[in-house]
Amino acid sequence: MTVVVNLLRFKLMIFSIVMLFIARDVQGNNLPSFEDGHRMWLRYETVKNIELLEQYKSRFASVVLNDNSGTMSAIKKELKIGLKGLLSIAPQFRRTIDRDGAILISTPESPALKTSLKKVLIKELKSVGNEGFILQKRSVNGYDTTIISANTDIGLLYGTFHLLRLMQTGKSLSRLNIKEFPEVQLRVANHWDNIDRSVERGYAGLSLWDWKTLPNYKDPRYTDYARLSSSVGINGVVINNVNANAEFITSRYLDRIATLANIFRPYGIKIYLSINFNSPQLLGNLNTADPLDEDVREWWRSKVQEIYNKIPDMGGFLVKADSEGQPGPNTYGRTHSDGANLLADALKPHGGIVMWRAFVYGEKQEDRIREAYDEFVPLDGEFNDNVILQVKKGPLDFMPMEPFSPLFGAMPNTNTMIEFQVTQEYLGNANHLLYKGKMYNKILMSDTYAHGKGTLVGDIISGKIFKYNLTGMAGVINPGTARNWTGHPFVQSSWYAFGRLAWNYQLDPDKIAREWIQMTFSNEEKVVEKIQKIMSISSEAAVNYREPLGLTHIGTGSHYGPAPWSKRSQIFHHADEVGIGFNRSTSGSSAVSQYHEPLASEFNNLSTIPEELLLWFHHVRWDYTMKSGNSLWEELVNHYHVGVNQVREMQELWDFLENEIDTERFNHVKSLLEIQERDAVRWRDACLLYFQSFSRKEIPKRYEQPKHSLQYYKSLKE
Amino acid sequence: MTVVVNLLRFKLMIFSIVMLFIARDVQGNNLPSFEDGHRMWLRYETVKNIELLEQYKSRFASVVLNDNSGTMSAIKKELKIGLKGLLSIAPQFRRTIDRDGAILISTPESPALKTSLKKVLIKELKSVGNEGFILQKRSVNGYDTTIISANTDIGLLYGTFHLLRLMQTGKSLSRLNIKEFPEVQLRVANHWDNIDRSVERGYAGLSLWDWKTLPNYKDPRYTDYARLSSSVGINGVVINNVNANAEFITSRYLDRIATLANIFRPYGIKIYLSINFNSPQLLGNLNTADPLDEDVREWWRSKVQEIYNKIPDMGGFLVKADSEGQPGPNTYGRTHSDGANLLADALKPHGGIVMWRAFVYGEKQEDRIREAYDEFVPLDGEFNDNVILQVKKGPLDFMPMEPFSPLFGAMPNTNTMIEFQVTQEYLGNANHLLYKGKMYNKILMSDTYAHGKGTLVGDIISGKIFKYNLTGMAGVINPGTARNWTGHPFVQSSWYAFGRLAWNYQLDPDKIAREWIQMTFSNEEKVVEKIQKIMSISSEAAVNYREPLGLTHIGTGSHYGPAPWSKRSQIFHHADEVGIGFNRSTSGSSAVSQYHEPLASEFNNLSTIPEELLLWFHHVRWDYTMKSGNSLWEELVNHYHVGVNQVREMQELWDFLENEIDTERFNHVKSLLEIQERDAVRWRDACLLYFQSFSRKEIPKRYEQPKHSLQYYKSLKE
Repeated sequence: MTVVVNLLRFKLMIFSIVMLFIARDVQGNNLPSFEDGHRMWLRYETVKNIELLEQYKSRFASVVLNDNSGTMSAIKKELKIGLKGLLSIAPQFRRTIDRDGAILISTPESPALKTSLKKVLIKELKSVGNEGFILQKRSVNGYDTTIISANTDIGLLYGTFHLLRLMQTGKSLSRLNIKEFPEVQLRVANHWDNIDRSVERGYAGLSLWDWKTLPNYKDPRYTDYARLSSSVGINGVVINNVNANAEFITSRYLDRIATLANIFRPYGIKIYLSINFNSPQLLGNLNTADPLDEDVREWWRSKVQEIYNKIPDMGGFLVKADSEGQPGPNTYGRTHSDGANLLADALKPHGGIVMWRAFVYGEKQEDRIREAYDEFVPLDGEFNDNVILQVKKGPLDFMPMEPFSPLFGAMPNTNTMIEFQVTQEYLGNANHLLYKGKMYNKILMSDTYAHGKGTLVGDIISGKIFKYNLTGMAGVINPGTARNWTGHPFVQSSWYAFGRLAWNYQLDPDKIAREWIQMTFSNEEKVVEKIQKIMSISSEAAVNYREPLGLTHIGTGSHYGPAPWSKRSQIFHHADEVGIGFNRSTSGSSAVSQYHEPLASEFNNLSTIPEELLLWFHHVRWDYTMKSGNSLWEELVNHYHVGVNQVREMQELWDFLENEIDTERFNHVKSLLEIQERDAVRWRDACLLYFQSFSRKEIPKRYEQPKHSLQYYKSLKE
Repeated sequence: MTVVVNLLRFKLMIFSIVMLFIARDVQGNNLPSFEDGHRMWLRYETVKNIELLEQYKSRFASVVLNDNSGTMSAIKKELKIGLKGLLSIAPQFRRTIDRDGAILISTPESPALKTSLKKVLIKELKSVGNEGFILQKRSVNGYDTTIISANTDIGLLYGTFHLLRLMQTGKSLSRLNIKEFPEVQLRVANHWDNIDRSVERGYAGLSLWDWKTLPNYKDPRYTDYARLSSSVGINGVVINNVNANAEFITSRYLDRIATLANIFRPYGIKIYLSINFNSPQLLGNLNTADPLDEDVREWWRSKVQEIYNKIPDMGGFLVKADSEGQPGPNTYGRTHSDGANLLADALKPHGGIVMWRAFVYGEKQEDRIREAYDEFVPLDGEFNDNVILQVKKGPLDFMPMEPFSPLFGAMPNTNTMIEFQVTQEYLGNANHLLYKGKMYNKILMSDTYAHGKGTLVGDIISGKIFKYNLTGMAGVINPGTARNWTGHPFVQSSWYAFGRLAWNYQLDPDKIAREWIQMTFSNEEKVVEKIQKIMSISSEAAVNYREPLGLTHIGTGSHYGPAPWSKRSQIFHHADEVGIGFNRSTSGSSAVSQYHEPLASEFNNLSTIPEELLLWFHHVRWDYTMKSGNSLWEELVNHYHVGVNQVREMQELWDFLENEIDTERFNHVKSLLEIQERDAVRWRDACLLYFQSFSRKEIPKRYEQPKHSLQYYKSLKE
């Protein structure tokens, strides 16, 4: 009997001890208990679904890999972090498969593999290239095994991130059979970072690269940056602004950059440099930078040699030339191809490439958006094979709404890549919630008709149409020293979407959004649904309250607020007493004719043009009858009001999340949505009041009337 | 028998379960596992000494307080964070004392107190003022109780931080009897933050204040900043640069600043604003800012009223006038007192004050360091009683080594406070390890002889000598968006020391260093000793390798590297073929005579002047024999070499800490020490090679010879 009492006491004791440790687990952690967004989508929260948790644990009984390269060490490191978070276990690394539930991470060359399996893998991996991987459940030596295999260690790393993502998003691992490889070769993040650590169009603090403490101090953040980039398949980083300071290629900076390259290398990320075309003059004391001058050519050869001595796998150069005040070959009466080939020749022996930007304009034409096409199409075929033309997604800039650039489909003999913008230059900086995945998708899925119907922009830039030997996608990202990298937490979602679409442009942007939410916020269905709805509305909302119906470039100098009254804006909206919009039809600047038929005619014709591009291509009367039956003026009023209401809907949806996600990010986004609502009203009122001075029509009474006078809105500067 | 087996099994089971939770505690935490320095000295690491841990827990059986103000809530919040970290417990808040081991946190007014105890406390608290507190062990209602009592809630908060500090630094709580109150009233952190979020002389990212998301978003970092400041007794924050943008006092910015004030208020921190003296012209469309003009006076009255409507407890203004291009009363032929009193009159009805900076120079005199004294001494007695003169610690600037400013002791009828610099403008920015506590102490302990021997600078600024009715100490701090607030983790130590010395200028800087190390790194004696040694060497090292023997201002434009060859430097070192140093003796600029006797004579005389100030006051022949027997040149060579060797000693000491502290901060400081060593060599070689061109003497062979040529060092820009 006393023994029984003792047993009860023991049970109580067990209970107390367990409770003590549970309590300690909850309270004893004195690290910042605080969700600051720093982990982005590699958050690795503990799997809450018990069934899945058990399944995952049973799949990770051991991990078999050969830690013989920096990349393999990176895989080990990532698994340690990931499994600690997701499953609360430390991975058991083994040399051989000796139990069920092993994860085998190996190229087919591994001596650990039996010849039979080796042969199978080699065959299966034939189609995945240097970066692809397979992920399969298979019996190995009689044991139930999950295999990640690839032709290279980098492929294995991508496969590991893929497997981790499956767990982060609550997918079953019980019947895996996945084959993945990227659709384009160059998946490049462009930083517009200056040498003084300011970031052009960056809204998240200073540049990540701390030149004052490099090369000595290797901030752990550099590694985190590489992890995040690699996890979505980004394999290149242009570390400095296209408006390039020549100092970056001096010996002192190259030493520092080499340190970054060493940190990025195991993650499959190459460093690229934006260069200043006048460097031979600025650094080399030459009196010319003429691309055909032999001294200039020799200077670049020798400079490139110096760079490769320090960074043997440097990716190459990104060049903005003869654009917005940047120097270029035109100064010397040479063409863009002369300029690009100069650098391409110097880089060729080292395997480097040139990304040459097509974003050029010099006020030569009345309609600036025509320039890139007019300047580059005649040069098609003139560029070396290690040059790729980097073309912004639209013909003007990174506008909320514009058609795709007509250069896509017009350069059959010139490698051509697309450039998107992640940072929200024209979309509320770091104050507004915006998911750009759908915008990217819209462009990539646009039909160019270059080889008949169904020649998508995505097909072109992935080299399926013109057999480019270099393909790529660039994203201008804005991360900075802000703890959460991007300022607004949701800018992360566009960064994520850029990476995923660069890997596979055919992915559904809504599914990408869902993945990101699951990894970044929660797997709870009610949370995912609400946030997905918000993200889905966000891009349409922004177009509505800023620049609906094809209006463009009507912001302030900083591009943050509205300024339709500014000189620059007037150049683009052409509002007058008759109507509004830029006549780019055949009766105007004829920019429509840069598109392939039947698109040119579709855009040229008021009755067939998609209304979302109406004012981009046409100057339209205020009383023109839209498809809805409304006049153009009423339709404009309606769009602006819908935009504001959509922001309010986003606010309501967000408010549902109180207590469903962490307080910190809930409060942060809630306050930023307040700012966004205030700004949306400002855009609506400022634009409508100003355009009203031409249309002389009322804002119908059923709509919320302007909060302030036009004068007030003009007084706001930012 | 089976029961016994069961018991054994149970024991094993307990063991396993316990181990499971221990493992989970170690591994299951997927927050950044990473010591990034963000918590600064409020790190609250778990107490490792078991005996102390038990003692502390027994003292915290319950916490009795009345949560009826923002400050009391702040106390509760801090105890939750602190005890979770230190003791792994959640504080049990109670209304009454009903057990041993209560912590009673209460002003004497609390209804919870019995009349007898109330009377005792009221009596004891008579001498501690509005911010002091007592901390005692005492029996209350028969229970063993720890009492924190004060006349105000803020006093209670300070007492709470004190108690937490005792536990952080491993002090016994068994015989507490502490009475504390601050020695000066205004303990103010000065931010040199600009409206664009750049920070003048800041090296730790952007300004903490994010004007683009205020007032909507209340970044939790604002609260952390208030916690850190309050924990060392700082009770005022000047939020913007003394080179002041008038925009800060426009309605839009005041709304944002008011939000900060609301966050800081519970922590006893008032907001002060740096103002632009020309604001009436810049904002008010007046055509003058003449302090005696009635429109100007009315403009300020009304502006101040507007400010107090938004921030009812705003502290007042800080003004830099007629200095380095800033506007001021001199433009209108008025004096500094006219200017200060203009603002003081406007602030008076609201209880606000003016901190008027004495840092003025306008190239009026050949010896700039004389100016502040010459300009302000004649105005003694002319300032309103709510004005306080803010005087930099030395007569020139925040130089590594200079005598105290002669204004301390020269203004018997003018409230005078001292201004120190925490940010390392002249001391390696955020790259060099430097503890300034000893530098501050040296100045505060300097004897001014203003009222005979033993009239310390600290005695003067605390109002003990001249009965000032305002007293204060300001520190120019540099925190920014860097995760660890200050860039170099050790800048935190000077910030900490500033706060502690502002509370009590008589504290021993080595003891302050020890406290800081214990709170920031470890209580392990071997760790504390090593770091304390490093900190103790650091300030002497910096003077040696930069500007020994009273040399000053020989840096580059950025003040980072050496540039003795620059025009400005030459003005200060006066090196020529005869010797080196600035003749400020009675045969020169006679700045010595600004000091009280016998100091003036001591400084004036080559044989009595402390050698560390030799070249500050005298131009000395290269072959002058120093106390060591060396010639001046040899002594100079020796100092520069000792400085470099001291940095190397710091490196060696730091290397001992590998595996004793977290990897992240170990690596970070180690890399920064590499940079510091490189820079120390640069300072040594650049200065000696340059001065050698005058002295024409050798660097004796027993010393390390210069690594590079003078030409090379001249080519380095930063």
